[in-house]
Amino acid sequence: MAIRFGLLGAGRIGKVHAKAVTGNPDARLVAVSDAMPAAAQAIADQYGCDVRSIDAIAAAKDIDAVVICTPTDTHADLIEQFVKAGKAVFCEKPIDLSLARVKQCLEVVRAAKGTLMVGFNRRFDPHFAAVRAEIDKGTVGAVEMVVITSRDPGAPPVDYIARSGGIFRDMTIHDFDMARFLLGEEVTEVSAMAAVLVDPAIGKAGDSDSVQVMLKTATGKMAVISNSRRATYGYDQRIEVHGSKGAVSAENQRPVSIEVATGAGYTRPPLHDFFMTRYTEAYAAEITAFIDAMGGKAKASPSGEDGLLALALAEAALKSVAEGRVVKVSEIL
Amino acid sequence: MAIRFGLLGAGRIGKVHAKAVTGNPDARLVAVSDAMPAAAQAIADQYGCDVRSIDAIAAAKDIDAVVICTPTDTHADLIEQFVKAGKAVFCEKPIDLSLARVKQCLEVVRAAKGTLMVGFNRRFDPHFAAVRAEIDKGTVGAVEMVVITSRDPGAPPVDYIARSGGIFRDMTIHDFDMARFLLGEEVTEVSAMAAVLVDPAIGKAGDSDSVQVMLKTATGKMAVISNSRRATYGYDQRIEVHGSKGAVSAENQRPVSIEVATGAGYTRPPLHDFFMTRYTEAYAAEITAFIDAMGGKAKASPSGEDGLLALALAEAALKSVAEGRVVKVSEIL
Amino acid sequence: MAIRFGLLGAGRIGKVHAKAVTGNPDARLVAVSDAMPAAAQAIADQYGCDVRSIDAIAAAKDIDAVVICTPTDTHADLIEQFVKAGKAVFCEKPIDLSLARVKQCLEVVRAAKGTLMVGFNRRFDPHFAAVRAEIDKGTVGAVEMVVITSRDPGAPPVDYIARSGGIFRDMTIHDFDMARFLLGEEVTEVSAMAAVLVDPAIGKAGDSDSVQVMLKTATGKMAVISNSRRATYGYDQRIEVHGSKGAVSAENQRPVSIEVATGAGYTRPPLHDFFMTRYTEAYAAEITAFIDAMGGKAKASPSGEDGLLALALAEAALKSVAEGRVVKVSEIL
Amino acid sequence: MAIRFGLLGAGRIGKVHAKAVTGNPDARLVAVSDAMPAAAQAIADQYGCDVRSIDAIAAAKDIDAVVICTPTDTHADLIEQFVKAGKAVFCEKPIDLSLARVKQCLEVVRAAKGTLMVGFNRRFDPHFAAVRAEIDKGTVGAVEMVVITSRDPGAPPVDYIARSGGIFRDMTIHDFDMARFLLGEEVTEVSAMAAVLVDPAIGKAGDSDSVQVMLKTATGKMAVISNSRRATYGYDQRIEVHGSKGAVSAENQRPVSIEVATGAGYTRPPLHDFFMTRYTEAYAAEITAFIDAMGGKAKASPSGEDGLLALALAEAALKSVAEGRVVKVSEIL
Repeated sequence: MAIRFGLLGAGRIGKVHAKAVTGNPDARLVAVSDAMPAAAQAIADQYGCDVRSIDAIAAAKDIDAVVICTPTDTHADLIEQFVKAGKAVFCEKPIDLSLARVKQCLEVVRAAKGTLMVGFNRRFDPHFAAVRAEIDKGTVGAVEMVVITSRDPGAPPVDYIARSGGIFRDMTIHDFDMARFLLGEEVTEVSAMAAVLVDPAIGKAGDSDSVQVMLKTATGKMAVISNSRRATYGYDQRIEVHGSKGAVSAENQRPVSIEVATGAGYTRPPLHDFFMTRYTEAYAAEITAFIDAMGGKAKASPSGEDGLLALALAEAALKSVAEGRVVKVSEIL
Repeated sequence: MAIRFGLLGAGRIGKVHAKAVTGNPDARLVAVSDAMPAAAQAIADQYGCDVRSIDAIAAAKDIDAVVICTPTDTHADLIEQFVKAGKAVFCEKPIDLSLARVKQCLEVVRAAKGTLMVGFNRRFDPHFAAVRAEIDKGTVGAVEMVVITSRDPGAPPVDYIARSGGIFRDMTIHDFDMARFLLGEEVTEVSAMAAVLVDPAIGKAGDSDSVQVMLKTATGKMAVISNSRRATYGYDQRIEVHGSKGAVSAENQRPVSIEVATGAGYTRPPLHDFFMTRYTEAYAAEITAFIDAMGGKAKASPSGEDGLLALALAEAALKSVAEGRVVKVSEIL
Repeated sequence: MAIRFGLLGAGRIGKVHAKAVTGNPDARLVAVSDAMPAAAQAIADQYGCDVRSIDAIAAAKDIDAVVICTPTDTHADLIEQFVKAGKAVFCEKPIDLSLARVKQCLEVVRAAKGTLMVGFNRRFDPHFAAVRAEIDKGTVGAVEMVVITSRDPGAPPVDYIARSGGIFRDMTIHDFDMARFLLGEEVTEVSAMAAVLVDPAIGKAGDSDSVQVMLKTATGKMAVISNSRRATYGYDQRIEVHGSKGAVSAENQRPVSIEVATGAGYTRPPLHDFFMTRYTEAYAAEITAFIDAMGGKAKASPSGEDGLLALALAEAALKSVAEGRVVKVSEIL
Repeated sequence: MAIRFGLLGAGRIGKVHAKAVTGNPDARLVAVSDAMPAAAQAIADQYGCDVRSIDAIAAAKDIDAVVICTPTDTHADLIEQFVKAGKAVFCEKPIDLSLARVKQCLEVVRAAKGTLMVGFNRRFDPHFAAVRAEIDKGTVGAVEMVVITSRDPGAPPVDYIARSGGIFRDMTIHDFDMARFLLGEEVTEVSAMAAVLVDPAIGKAGDSDSVQVMLKTATGKMAVISNSRRATYGYDQRIEVHGSKGAVSAENQRPVSIEVATGAGYTRPPLHDFFMTRYTEAYAAEITAFIDAMGGKAKASPSGEDGLLALALAEAALKSVAEGRVVKVSEIL
């Protein structure tokens, strides 16, 4: 029997999930809800599902699970409402920008014995997942150092920046999760540097646009992350894992992989320029993983706890920049 | 208004087209037909369309177009039936294995002023299409030489080989079409060599499994094609175009593009191992092109004439192998 | 004890060999000869060796071996003179443009029990040599098909073309030798196509500038060669070998391997633009191989016979173009 | 007139410089000195130069310049002796492990108006030099972030480690110089993390074998360096520079660049496994640069000051690890 989904939020990312759910043979999109009725209706028209209110979806007998794609400040409340209503919950990251609120929310999930999965979609990218699979197979031996590069094609609007919780909570958080996913050990120390190199308006908004972060675990495994809000050549997303026996890496992806050779050299086209085209397969795969978790085939992963820990690393990075020192994660959690 | 499709044939390639049609926002799959009712029903169940007979589809008022995916020996008859019935026709290659029958069929299409598009899907692969786009933009100047590599992961069953018309009509035909697509001029001379290197059973069936072909146009532009029914590392599909100003090439595609580095060297995973995963995007794009042609946005291309000319090159190649000489295409057509 | 060398010819390729000999710890350059005394003196000054006449070098007690870099029409005579004088001979390709003269010359070498090595330098390129080593190790299984690409950055002057014996004897001959080196079996059939696409003056001189050739052995192994006198992006030299277990290839080489990424894409610099920088290592390695052959560590290879057989393939290709048919090598030899 | 060189030190790196000097058309190797007479004699035999004492070389009228390749603890004394003797000095890095001693030595060089060049050879690698050339041309716009990877194939013997001054002064120092070379601004802040992951014996010797370092300039430009004493796949040496208009990178180098494709995937051979083969061209090019500096064509670069500043970054990194904080370079100098 197919899992029956409700979709909360019909914006940009909501549309991505609507497509992933309807394209999945084990899922059925039953209802969509959005504060803007026209947005919900557009999805309902395209995929032949109902428009309902959030409360109606929570109360519905024909809904097994929800995907939460509403604004960040509603995530924790909705997670609580829906786990209490007995629905399995897939929530876009982050659960909340406040560590305290996240902890409180996870308490409610635990009490309700609810299923909660957090949308760190990059774990499901086939290339990054294959890197992790090589680690699991032992190909590179014991993991020693991880190098993560993540550079966006361009900065978001400054008013988005202002609401985003800052670059560490908004952008680097994906890399913090990826570092944890690949290191296989909890990070205990964080050191970060930040600068405004791309757009002074971002600095005026109190944020940075270029950062680098070093992480370390209790046994000395290390990771380094580079982030920028600027990459003229497209969406730059690379990982490298070095271990005792070798290394494994995932290179960038481009929509078209031709090469032109002239007197000026050999040129390949730019990379994907948008996270949605870059991660199309990942969005589909994370819904499959969520369905598997609901069917008991696997644990819901990344979990609410994973969401909490990535956020803690973001907090530690902020503190490190502010105080010019290595911050222990135990100071944060 | 979405175009309403009938699907003739619910086998392996029929399923591919069912997915392409239903995934296209401008198309709707209305009915499917197959000699084996269970196969048709499976598609009807998955996509919510009717199962109908071929004649019912031909007579239906709610069908604008058909996709023909039935066995090769039925193609020409069906094309004739459906253009006469006023439906736009997309037909899998080849139209027929007999050049005479193809000519006759195209005569009927012309008389009926029908729309006929032939499924040379590789023209719609985003990478190969981008190669052609560079030629059209003039990046490489006047085209001089084309190099096409096409190697299958493994040979089909010998009983398929026996019905296939031989490697030139079954496999190289895609490369003949690609050569015509890229040369931008009609081929006038063909020279081929063939051998049985992969499987003696293929030789016993009267076919070859390894061939190389040289083509030439009236102005001296040339192309060379290499084919094999064996490629242990996956589906090897590459093109290179050399012109007066430079070259453009499309490299192979792999589902996962990681790289593992150890003392043994740097290893990337094998290529796609199946034409359906390799050409997923192409199958979707050719349906879009067909719909565009129906809407008058473009000519139906590749056309029935393209199907005829590729088949003529296959005939010429066969004759060249048999007679150990360069064969003029004018000897064939 | 170091081998004592005489160098015959102090032109462009003579300088390359002077450097290779003096850079080899087992060799010593003792004397140089050239019809133009200033050219010989320049090499003598740079490397501290004598200028002598050809006859003096032939008669010298302090010379063990010679490298022949004089004009092609002197090669056969010099080979005969020096093997009779008891010197080991390394001769630049070709031995002669006439198959009959080559056969006669090799007769003299055999009678004198002389050591003769022919300068097919590409066999010693570390990348191409590594391809052959993989074949010898069995990595790709039984060789089935070889693909050779060889495109020059630009055409030589037309008066060079006129004396060159034509593109098959001058340029493709390297590829004929490479095909023989990689196929591991003698070629029995040749089919070629030729065109003038680069420079009409080459056509007026009776030569072609763009050719493609197919080769076949008695057991059905095949090779295909593409040549052009034009490659705007540098010296394009690639080989691919496909076998029953897999494939091995050697890619192009560039002097600087950086990559620039901008909004226009990812660009790497052009390839080497000159055969001397492309094959620097090969020129040094072939002298080492020659010294090894003199010391009895290996056979002199490529041999005079290899020179003869590559020339026979060139003749067969010419005949194939002229007669529009597959030519058997047995018709030539 | 060729520059006449004396070589001080005939060990492993001395041999490299002997080859670079004798291979340079504008240089002549006149004399060599070494504490072990046999080592000096071997070079004298190979290249036909004298063996002399250090003092004799300092006093010699037929010596214009010296290359210092003796043990590190003799560098500063020899630099002082030879600049006072009026010889141009090329000295292997580092000048000394003590910052105070380096400052004192540079004082003497300045007083003597001597020419001193320090052997940060990587600046002369053609690939890394090309990266810098792209920056200078403005291709990537204003430099924002630099990423440097430097991983050795294996750890040196522990007794070498003990004398080396530690990984930051011995290994990372090359990367500190490279970061300064590419950032185009002085580094003002350093943060480092270090661990023992490769060999516990290195830890017992008081050193680390795996480190990562973040650097920052006054205007916010940043760099990150990853180092390990282990890389099973060869000598891993990469740089990336990201700027306002794009990025430029230099990839790894391998001696043989073939690719083998089988059912197991596509495999290229390992990288160079030794710094001398990896940087062959760089060693030759730095001698050319030194000769150019002597002839007034360019400043001696990298200078003694460059040696001092790279060492200061190493000291800052050590302090950062010890104190768990960002260290300002102004605390060190």
